[in-house]
Parts: sequence; structure tokens; C-alpha cells
Amino acid sequence: MNYRMIASIVGRILCVEALFLVPAVLVSIYYGENSAMRALLLSALFTFAAGLGCMAIPPKTRGYYAREGFVIVALGWIIISFFGALPFYLSGEIPSFVDCLFETVSGFTTTGASILSDPQDLSRGLLYWRSFTHWLGGMGVLVFLLAVDTLGARRGQRGSGQSMHLLRAESPGPDVGKLVPKMHRTAKILYGIYIGMTLLQMLLLRAGGMAVFDTVTTAFGTAGTGGFGLYADSFAGYSPYLQWVVTIFMALFGVNFGIYYLLLTRDMRSVLHNEELRLYLGIMLLSTFAIAWNVRPMYASLGETLRHCAFQVSSVMTTTGFSTVDFALWPEFSRTVLLVLMVLGACAGSTGGGIKMIRLLLLGKGLRSELGRIISPRLVRTTHLGGKPVGEDTMRGVYAFMSTYVAITVASLLLVSLSGYDTETTLSAVFACLNNIGPGLGQVGPASSYALFSAPIKLLLCLDMLFGRLEIFPLLMIFLPSTWRRNS
Amino acid sequence: MNYRMIASIVGRILCVEALFLVPAVLVSIYYGENSAMRALLLSALFTFAAGLGCMAIPPKTRGYYAREGFVIVALGWIIISFFGALPFYLSGEIPSFVDCLFETVSGFTTTGASILSDPQDLSRGLLYWRSFTHWLGGMGVLVFLLAVDTLGARRGQRGSGQSMHLLRAESPGPDVGKLVPKMHRTAKILYGIYIGMTLLQMLLLRAGGMAVFDTVTTAFGTAGTGGFGLYADSFAGYSPYLQWVVTIFMALFGVNFGIYYLLLTRDMRSVLHNEELRLYLGIMLLSTFAIAWNVRPMYASLGETLRHCAFQVSSVMTTTGFSTVDFALWPEFSRTVLLVLMVLGACAGSTGGGIKMIRLLLLGKGLRSELGRIISPRLVRTTHLGGKPVGEDTMRGVYAFMSTYVAITVASLLLVSLSGYDTETTLSAVFACLNNIGPGLGQVGPASSYALFSAPIKLLLCLDMLFGRLEIFPLLMIFLPSTWRRNS
Repeated sequence: MNYRMIASIVGRILCVEALFLVPAVLVSIYYGENSAMRALLLSALFTFAAGLGCMAIPPKTRGYYAREGFVIVALGWIIISFFGALPFYLSGEIPSFVDCLFETVSGFTTTGASILSDPQDLSRGLLYWRSFTHWLGGMGVLVFLLAVDTLGARRGQRGSGQSMHLLRAESPGPDVGKLVPKMHRTAKILYGIYIGMTLLQMLLLRAGGMAVFDTVTTAFGTAGTGGFGLYADSFAGYSPYLQWVVTIFMALFGVNFGIYYLLLTRDMRSVLHNEELRLYLGIMLLSTFAIAWNVRPMYASLGETLRHCAFQVSSVMTTTGFSTVDFALWPEFSRTVLLVLMVLGACAGSTGGGIKMIRLLLLGKGLRSELGRIISPRLVRTTHLGGKPVGEDTMRGVYAFMSTYVAITVASLLLVSLSGYDTETTLSAVFACLNNIGPGLGQVGPASSYALFSAPIKLLLCLDMLFGRLEIFPLLMIFLPSTWRRNS
Repeated sequence: MNYRMIASIVGRILCVEALFLVPAVLVSIYYGENSAMRALLLSALFTFAAGLGCMAIPPKTRGYYAREGFVIVALGWIIISFFGALPFYLSGEIPSFVDCLFETVSGFTTTGASILSDPQDLSRGLLYWRSFTHWLGGMGVLVFLLAVDTLGARRGQRGSGQSMHLLRAESPGPDVGKLVPKMHRTAKILYGIYIGMTLLQMLLLRAGGMAVFDTVTTAFGTAGTGGFGLYADSFAGYSPYLQWVVTIFMALFGVNFGIYYLLLTRDMRSVLHNEELRLYLGIMLLSTFAIAWNVRPMYASLGETLRHCAFQVSSVMTTTGFSTVDFALWPEFSRTVLLVLMVLGACAGSTGGGIKMIRLLLLGKGLRSELGRIISPRLVRTTHLGGKPVGEDTMRGVYAFMSTYVAITVASLLLVSLSGYDTETTLSAVFACLNNIGPGLGQVGPASSYALFSAPIKLLLCLDMLFGRLEIFPLLMIFLPSTWRRNS
């Protein structure tokens, strides 16, 4: 284990976080919030100092492997969450440090679960930082470092192979495809698309008459599929136009970013034949109509029904977590559909969470070939995706992911159930955190907050959020003794 | 597809069912229940006639393969359920045929879910038949046919290989081990152990002062891990001694019957080193103590607490479904533990349901080797169970089972949620039926019944019970067009 190299990269991550705190400082200066400004500035300086400290240890060798990649990502995300929680704590606006940490982990992991009953209690500078953590967490801090080329990715093929370990550990989905051969070029393209789409959404929201501060935080929350809102009733107060814009952009940010690269290179054929995209849109439309049929007596017109259903489905399936209605009050069938969507999640290579469409697709294909094997044992079958054969390794990886996912869900359910809330609250709290959605059902529904849980349960849910965002394995690795013991 | 052979075997199954109806006729004669006696006798005659009719079609060839094996088992179980429901319907004691079918499927699949709010409303003859379906379903009707040697299993190796297809399709667990080389000898040994243990339990219950009729139905319900009781409060009214006897026998019937064969052959070493048995007993003890700690304020003494916890854990984990308390009223943590146990189930090769200990063990081992692969990609690892390597085929089968299991659970949840009951009722109704437990939580808890659901939902739950008992694939096969289309 190359500890010095790990320290050096974690140091760089902290320096970047410190830089990203600066806009929040400026926001608080603009709104004349002195206390918040001091807290944000102090946090930025402290984070920068810590980052420089870590970087001061010079690595003996610059090589790292998959194992180091996992450790860097897991430790990196835990550490930025601790430092990111400082502004909330130092300002005194959220008195308990566990609550500050919960809010920050929820931000970076793009969950959007909040302990605040009314976000309007926070100052503007902190609200800005809170939403910005979504944006940063959505695409990933390490991908950002790759994009700005400070990880030595340019130095030939070897460096590029190493950065691949980081990208693989931080990115969602069972198999990371490079868009272009060079890793740092891929990262640049991803961030380019990300920034472009965020700006486009801001423009469209502004065109609908939304206040500037709201457009910025909303776009951050949508792009990262995060879900922190500015108001206790989330998006209920906005106009139908604004609700539709957010619906569409949530759905767009749940799509694999590789699709946008294909669109940029005008490869329409590949886009139209993408099986994951078809499944994603198919499930989204089907769920919207199924719920619309179920809740139709609750709303005045068909248009209103469809608007609310499309918004909620888009929000839950992309694991964003915004809401225009309190869907915890919808009938049991609609709530069950939402619970299922929570787990399914969005596409791989998007900013969304959940188990991802691609895994669902692979599980279905694996099952089909297994059933074929039972009927005709002598026929040899290979699973294909997008015309290419799927390796046994990928399938085994998907199965291992699913097993661990279920094990973590069950363990979390048992621990959260010690709080003694009803089944729906317990179940949806775990689902909403592990899949990075945010609001659940029952007592953690859109109209409520996570403040009701005790500190240990909040920390457990923080862990679940990190498991969800990092897709289990990187975080699991740092708990395994064998990661630290053996040398290869 | 050898349709004539299928008809011939299904015919034999019906004849056996008709014979098994005879004791119920005698019981109703003994208790002077004329109407029930007529219904039972008529059903027996009708079933026998139908069986003879099916057998009258002479098969051209006697060969069948895995595919035919699955179809025979699936159709066989559906057909015996229809005929088995006749006595309830003809007697008029359960007016709706869907309810009769639900009760019978619940019986044969050893589920024990009931639409009766008080079983005492039924006549003795029907109560006997209801409990006897558990006993018959526990070990399997086809295994019985093998044991009495009417499947041509004796005629050399070829016949034995064919019966293997049937045994594999009907028996619980991912991999069927023969105890002895000849299939019909294995079936004989299994039924021998089964009958011996059932009789032993009857003796011990009688020694505790239980009424003769109660000892018989209780032993049937325990041996099949079924759970139909005679009273609305299940076992709450019996003495602590009787409750303990049932607790221990439920646990014993959840053990792989291969273990008892090892005990008979005095192979203690293999018994002590059996990983599935260790996991089973470990989870059972751990859950008992965890729940006891959680519910300790509800009961007067430690002894009473432990007795109720051990009974409920043993009942739910072996998927029996008897109860001494209304565990739907236990705190959330205990209910969550029970929900998890419902899904885990008992050992493979026992009469219990659920996903089975062995699959849990294999999933854990598969996961461990996958994590090892991530840390040290170049190391080749093989999964071992009981000292023997586990084939890729077995692992793929387990993964396919788990995927389908989850898919069926989700589909059932969505459909049952249309009834509009709370999450706990919906979830536990599906879990309790698919895993062949019987009582769930919420409105389908031990103190309630399944009468509240509509006819279509009851039929769906019947399907779930059959999926659970036949471990998905045999039943799934008959819904796949490719089973019927291709010839191999």
C-alpha cells in the first residue's frame, strides 16, 4: 500500500474543496451575512492548510493500483465530508456536528436527505454551499482532478492506466467505458457536458421567472441528482413551467453521459439502439402512467395529474428527491411503485444512484440464458449487450454487487428498526439513503426530515449514503483487513 | 415433449391423492359428520376416476427429460390443489371456490396461510384433511411415488436417472444429493425418517396430555412445516411443555434430512462439520436472543420470554407459521428480524421454505471470492463447500434463483399493493406466501386471516405459494413458450 501517494492525492482533493468554498464565501459577503461568511472563510482556510499538510509528504513512488484507487476514493469522500461540514458547524446554524455531517454527506453523495425542517432557517451562503456539494458530488471530485490534469494523467499510458483505477472506483456502473483513449480527455469531456447542461437549465429556469439564487441552487441540485431544495415544500410553490423544466432536466441527468458524447459526435444509430436508455425511458413512462391512473381522483385535471406524476417519478427514479406534492400521502400502489423505483435508480455513468438500469438489464439477460440452459442443457449461450458479449467477470461483478447490496440493506434495516418507527419509515429511510434519493415515505416523507433519528442512526445512514454513491466496493474495501494486510 | 408420459404420471398422482382422502373419510365417519363425509367420499371417488382416466392414455415411450420433469411437477401440484379443494367446496363449509383453492394450495405448499378466522368452524374430517395436505406436501407427492416404486425407478440406471429429474424439480435446495445410489431407495429412506419423526412427535405431544386429534394435526403441521392450527390463537392455549416440544420439532424438521441419514449411519464427523447446519442453528439462536432482548419488558419472566421467542423464531425460520403470541404486536426491531427470517428460511433438503441456508452460504462464499479478486486480481480462487469445490453451474443457478425470486417478489408487491393496505401488510403477505410461512404481520398477522384480500389477489398469492414450494423454476417453465415449442 502506497500510503504516501494516498496522502498526496487526498491532500489535493482537500485543496480543491477549499477552492470550491470560495464562491460560497462571496455569496455570504453579497448577502451581508457576517457570521456565515466568517465560518465559510475559516473552513476554507483550514481545509486548504490540511490539504497542503497532506501534500507536503512527498511520495517515494508515484505508482498505485486498483487497491490504492479504492482506498483513495473511499478516504477522499469521507474526509471531504468532514471538512465540508465545518461551515455549518462553525456558523452555529446547525448546532450538532452529527447533523452537520449528515447534511454534508447527504450533499456530496447527492442524496438530499435533510435534517432541516425548513431550509429557509439557513443563511444564503450556507444554502449555496449545501447545494454546491450536490453539483460537486454528482460528477465526482476525482474526476474533476483528472479533468484539470493534476493527477499526472498526461504522462503517457502508465499514468492513464492509473487514473482509470480512480475513475472506476468513483464512477457509477459496473463497467467504466472511456469515451476517448486518454483518461484526462474523457474527464474533460464529461465535465464539459455537465457544465453545459447545468448552464442551460439555469437559463431555462431564469426564463420562467425564477429568482437568480434559486436558479443556481436548483440547477446544482438537479445536475447532481441531489435534491436539496430551498423550501420546506420543495417545488410545490413553483409554476407548472418551472416544474416541467426540472422534470425534464432530472430525467436528462439520469442518462449515461456517454449518450451525450454520442449525440455530440452525431452517432444517432448508437443512441437509438442503446438498450439501457430504452429500458430507462420505458420504465419511466410506464411508472408515470401507472401512478397517474392510481392517483387520478386526487387532482383536478389530467394535466395536473400527469405533471405531478412525471415530476415525482423523474425525481425518484433519477434519485434526485425534489417533490411537488407530498407523495407519502399517495395510495399504497403508487408508494410501492416509488419504493421499487428508488431501488432501480438511473443509468450507469449518470449522476444518479440506485442499482442502475444496466445491472437490471444484465440480471435479466443472465436469467434468460440460465432458463435456456435448464430447458436445453447442451446449448451454449453467451449474454450480449449492445451487440457485444458480456464477460463472465462482469456478470460475477454484478452478482457480487447485488449480494452485498442486499446484505447492507438488511443490516441497515435491522439497525434502523431499533428506533422503533413503522415499517414504511424504516424501509424507505434505508432505501432513500442507500440509493441517494433523499426523502422517503412515512415519517421521512417529502414533508418531513431525518431529524427524528438518533445520532448513531444518522451516522449509519451517512455510511449507507456513501455506500450508495461509491457503489459499495471502494468503501467496503477499507473495512476489510486484507486490504491493509497483504502486499502484492 | 412426451405428453402421454406426463398424463400417465399426473394420473398416478391423482390416484394417490384419492387414496389419501380415505383416512379423512374415516375421521368424518368417526365423528358422525355426514355432510363432510359425503363431500370427502365424493371427492375421493371423483379424483380416483380422473386419475384412472389420465392413466388410460398409454405412453408410447417411457422416456422423459429435465423439461418433462419440470412440467410434471408443476402441473401435478396445480392439479392436486384443484382436486384437494373439492371436499371444502362440496361440503359447503367454505362457500367460495377461490377460498377453497387458497386453503388447499396453502396446505400442500406447507404455507399455512388461512382464510378462516376460526378453524373450529370446520368439521373434524375437513380439519384432518387440511392438516394432512401439509404432511403430504412437506416431503412431496412425487417423492412418495418414488418411495412406493410406481415410477419404474427400479428398472436399472436409466429409470433412476429419469426419476432424478422429478426429485430435483420437487425437492428444495440448489443441488439434490442422493443419499444412496438408487433413487427409490433414497426416497424410501427419506419417507422412513419423515414417518418416524412424525410418530415420535405425536407420542411426545400425547405424553404432555394433548388430545389425540390435536396430536395428529399438530404433528402433520409441524412435520410439513405447514402451520395450519386448530384454534384461532394457534398454540397460545397449550401448556409450556407442549409449546417446547413443538418448538424443537419445528427446528428439527427445518434441518436437511441428509443429516438424519448421516446420524443413522453414525457419521458424526460429517454432521458436526456441516456448514449449513451450523449457519442454521447459529442464526436461530442469535435471532432468539436478539428478539428476547427486544421484547423482554412484555413478559413476566425470562423463561416465558425465551419460550415465546424460541417458538416464534423456530416457527418463522422453518416457515411453519404456528404462533404462541401475536408477534404482529411486537416492537419494530423484532418484526424486522422476523421479516428477514421469513425470507432466509430453513435448510435445503428439509420440508421448510424460503431461500434456504445453503443459498445464503453460497452467496456469501461467492461474494468473498469476488472481493478477493478485486484486491488481488491475479489470484485464482475456487469456492468450496464442505471441502468440495462448488461448480460455476451451481453458482449461476443460485444467482438465477435469486434474481427470479426478487423479480417475483417485486411483481407480487406491486399487484398486492393495489388492494391499498399498509406497507407492512402488503410486504409480509407476499413474503409469508412466497416463503410458505403462513401468517405475516400487520393485517395478516397471526391473529388475523387472509380473508380480507379480493379473489384475484388470493389467486396471485396461490401462485406465490406454489412458486415458493417448487422453488420457482418448475412453475416458471410452464409459463415459458419455449418449454412447449422446441423439441430436443
